[in-house]
Amino acid sequence: MHAHYANRWSSRAFDSRPVADEVLYTVLEAARWVPSSGNGQPWRFIVARTEEERRRFASFIRPANREWSDHAPVLILLISYTLNDNGTPSGSHAFDEGTAWGTIASQAALLGLNTHAIGGYDRELAREALHIPAEYELLAVIKLGYPGDKSALPEALQEREVPTGRRSLNELVFEAVFLG
Amino acid sequence: MHAHYANRWSSRAFDSRPVADEVLYTVLEAARWVPSSGNGQPWRFIVARTEEERRRFASFIRPANREWSDHAPVLILLISYTLNDNGTPSGSHAFDEGTAWGTIASQAALLGLNTHAIGGYDRELAREALHIPAEYELLAVIKLGYPGDKSALPEALQEREVPTGRRSLNELVFEAVFLG
Repeated sequence: MHAHYANRWSSRAFDSRPVADEVLYTVLEAARWVPSSGNGQPWRFIVARTEEERRRFASFIRPANREWSDHAPVLILLISYTLNDNGTPSGSHAFDEGTAWGTIASQAALLGLNTHAIGGYDRELAREALHIPAEYELLAVIKLGYPGDKSALPEALQEREVPTGRRSLNELVFEAVFLG
Repeated sequence: MHAHYANRWSSRAFDSRPVADEVLYTVLEAARWVPSSGNGQPWRFIVARTEEERRRFASFIRPANREWSDHAPVLILLISYTLNDNGTPSGSHAFDEGTAWGTIASQAALLGLNTHAIGGYDRELAREALHIPAEYELLAVIKLGYPGDKSALPEALQEREVPTGRRSLNELVFEAVFLG
């Protein structure tokens, strides 16, 4: 296995050092090429990097997630277009959007960046603050930046600065018939 | 950008050469480590490799997708657990499953394998044939194998053996406010 898959984990400690345009766009460019149902490419990326943009994002992120996200220099809201070309509801947009996110996480790791996805934000406030039409669904907010020093985090979060475990492959892989 | 992201595309031409256990498990192991909401890891992988297993999968794949998938030595049905730990419906399982799929596709590409996801199969037949309980959702069937010769494909599909394009980053990335 390519080491960046197993070594990647979602730290909460970010350095405030900015992420250069070419680095950020390298990450998003990788996501652009992932496969999607009917090549529909439902993903859209709303990026916040300036002080003002980050303040706007902070207005809808829950306080418990803000105490550490305030250090991340880049925030990316992942939204997905929920309709097919013919206007019927897409059954795969969230899955497709996750495909893009998986690639953002691994390309970022290859560039030495940390990413951390959060679902803990107010979707209605975000929709309003960023003028997102009803036909887009709001998925995760991604925090992206270089790894930081965990001593800058609140004490309770410092203790959580370790990679989480995973189920074993035995629990995940089934030959031919599901035995969950 | 790491070249395997942009060079990867979903060919329909597979070689029937088997995929060794350690290669398949390297791909699934990479997916095991992706992040998910609350580390819920909703992904499960049902794998078909033997003749009998592949026949069972063929029973629910639509004929139009079977004429080329019959060559792929490995089929993987991606299913996701749709409930949270407390039994409430998960709002993120499809997105999380897509994260795993994005990593399967890129780790496979790093190993010289082709992958192609299809949604064109009968979910109810599949659920029955593979004994999948109601609390799991069926996402995509992944075909996985080494690249093959397109001359083995039906003529109409040979013409489609080129990478598809993508929207430009200008259409996908928005600074701070959505302008779709």
